[in-house]
Amino acid sequence: MSIVKRIMLLVILLLIIVSCKKSTDTSLKTINYKTDPLPSWNEGKTKKAILDFVTKVTDPDNPNFVRVEDRIATFDNDGNLWSEKPFYFQLAFALDRIHATASDHPEWKTTQPYKAAIEGNIKEVLTYGKHGLLKLVMASHTGMTTDEFNNIVTEWLATSKHPRFNRPYHTLIYQPMLELLDYLQTNDFKTFIVSGGGIDFLRVWAEEAYGIPEYQIVGSSLKTIFEYNNGKAVIKKLSEIDFINDKAGKPVGIHKHISKKPIFASGNSDGDLQMLQYAASNDKPSFMIYLHHTDAEREWAYDRESHVGRLDKGLDEAREKGWTVIDMKNDWKVVYPFQLQK
Amino acid sequence: MSIVKRIMLLVILLLIIVSCKKSTDTSLKTINYKTDPLPSWNEGKTKKAILDFVTKVTDPDNPNFVRVEDRIATFDNDGNLWSEKPFYFQLAFALDRIHATASDHPEWKTTQPYKAAIEGNIKEVLTYGKHGLLKLVMASHTGMTTDEFNNIVTEWLATSKHPRFNRPYHTLIYQPMLELLDYLQTNDFKTFIVSGGGIDFLRVWAEEAYGIPEYQIVGSSLKTIFEYNNGKAVIKKLSEIDFINDKAGKPVGIHKHISKKPIFASGNSDGDLQMLQYAASNDKPSFMIYLHHTDAEREWAYDRESHVGRLDKGLDEAREKGWTVIDMKNDWKVVYPFQLQK
Repeated sequence: MSIVKRIMLLVILLLIIVSCKKSTDTSLKTINYKTDPLPSWNEGKTKKAILDFVTKVTDPDNPNFVRVEDRIATFDNDGNLWSEKPFYFQLAFALDRIHATASDHPEWKTTQPYKAAIEGNIKEVLTYGKHGLLKLVMASHTGMTTDEFNNIVTEWLATSKHPRFNRPYHTLIYQPMLELLDYLQTNDFKTFIVSGGGIDFLRVWAEEAYGIPEYQIVGSSLKTIFEYNNGKAVIKKLSEIDFINDKAGKPVGIHKHISKKPIFASGNSDGDLQMLQYAASNDKPSFMIYLHHTDAEREWAYDRESHVGRLDKGLDEAREKGWTVIDMKNDWKVVYPFQLQK
Repeated sequence: MSIVKRIMLLVILLLIIVSCKKSTDTSLKTINYKTDPLPSWNEGKTKKAILDFVTKVTDPDNPNFVRVEDRIATFDNDGNLWSEKPFYFQLAFALDRIHATASDHPEWKTTQPYKAAIEGNIKEVLTYGKHGLLKLVMASHTGMTTDEFNNIVTEWLATSKHPRFNRPYHTLIYQPMLELLDYLQTNDFKTFIVSGGGIDFLRVWAEEAYGIPEYQIVGSSLKTIFEYNNGKAVIKKLSEIDFINDKAGKPVGIHKHISKKPIFASGNSDGDLQMLQYAASNDKPSFMIYLHHTDAEREWAYDRESHVGRLDKGLDEAREKGWTVIDMKNDWKVVYPFQLQK
């Protein structure tokens, strides 16, 4: 091989190194743009609306560009990131706990909604509304430290199964929403969960399930107290409601934990309406999206008449204001991750 | 130029490109390790203790390695990231507001600590303790939306000046602490402010001043309410205290907003003691650090007898438990950014 050829070879090798370098530099963002960031979503106006919004707010040359620090996205959890039927999964946890600890609380036998819960009368439990459910949830979570609570939830998730799908509850998360979260995160959105559910319950499993850090989870809470004894420091959960992160509480919770107004808000029930209104009032471009449960076969179909996850006023307002509404049956190729073809 | 020389030149150029590529790829982390990540800190046991801790918890081969998701660092603000003398800067803001709005609140003339505030009797104001100060701070922040409040704070920061340094208050932040925050962030720590001060006050300016996102700021708060009217959505600040993030409130605030126990906790007063105890009780390696104000010439010297930022029990406990104590006078080359040599 001549010296020229050797040098040429070296040049080619160096060019390969440089181009390899470039390809490892290519972020997921670029890859996602080129292929399909939402593979479990059918083509159509819903998917297009999402892609169009994210494209315009992340393009510095677009008049609708939004700075990275303002790309706040908020997601309801129950019925929006995971299922909520036949009733809220945290309620299933609470009922199991109430059964396990009923003997320590004789007063529950004569007070609603505890009485109905012990009797297993879910239909009656649900008539006490979301506040009643929260009471039940909260009451079954007290008298322990946050560490003890975490252990109880972890144990419950590992051992209990959803009655219809016979699978652990935290596997009933929505594959298309996981892709949406990932797509937003890849585009430098900070994604937050803003749930009516208990903040401590969510934080046990949601970081791993959704790739959302514990400190980006907002929810309802009990009051807690700090206890210190000889180097041992714990947070104890008191049996007093601190904050209910539902309806008009959601914008308050967002202000408390996030501070900025979201530019992207995703929910599925009337409990999310104020959160969507709050995002819609942003002086930056914003995107409001409702998940409409229309799929009785693969998941559930419910809206205006449902006790759990009622979507009535929200649906009207979404249609009136042109917010995006996901039609689960037609917009989603699969519902749960376990339905993905291997 | 011969073809060989031309090709050699091309090779050299490509090598330069490759090496340039490498140097732009090199993260700040690597640069910081090689040079000095804490240039405003004098060499000594304090600086060494910080570097040693960060080095060991970020080294996957070290038995004290801590996963990125658990690298939570919490910082007090007043007297820890910026000065707090002659009295809390937010109190200066509150007093200015109280003067500006006193005519709307005739009841303040006969009720403490408002009376003392209107009379400009700071010494008496301070005798009402941190709770009294918070009352004053909170009372002067109400009857407006959060957006209106943000504008008032922004305006105040732009126009008011610290009496000793004759500079805007938010320029009196500590250069060595900025470097410490940056060093931790570079090493994949999530840095949080955990302050007794008002969360809404802090969030107006702290994101820009410290490079800490608004949602990583924890502080005391007023209750708020969501108001919606025909597409206009606001959060209104009520004149009722929601949460006081001081002393035993700090671990509660950390649980509420961050969820995880910190592995790095930094404070300067007895109000931070429980936060440091909380971090010290972490089952992962943790680092507790107190800033001791020992520099009457460049800043202030105070500890056990001070009304503002008293450090008494905390100093004893730090010494007893071997926590790191910063000696401001001897450990810091400069105090404020404006003292840096250009």
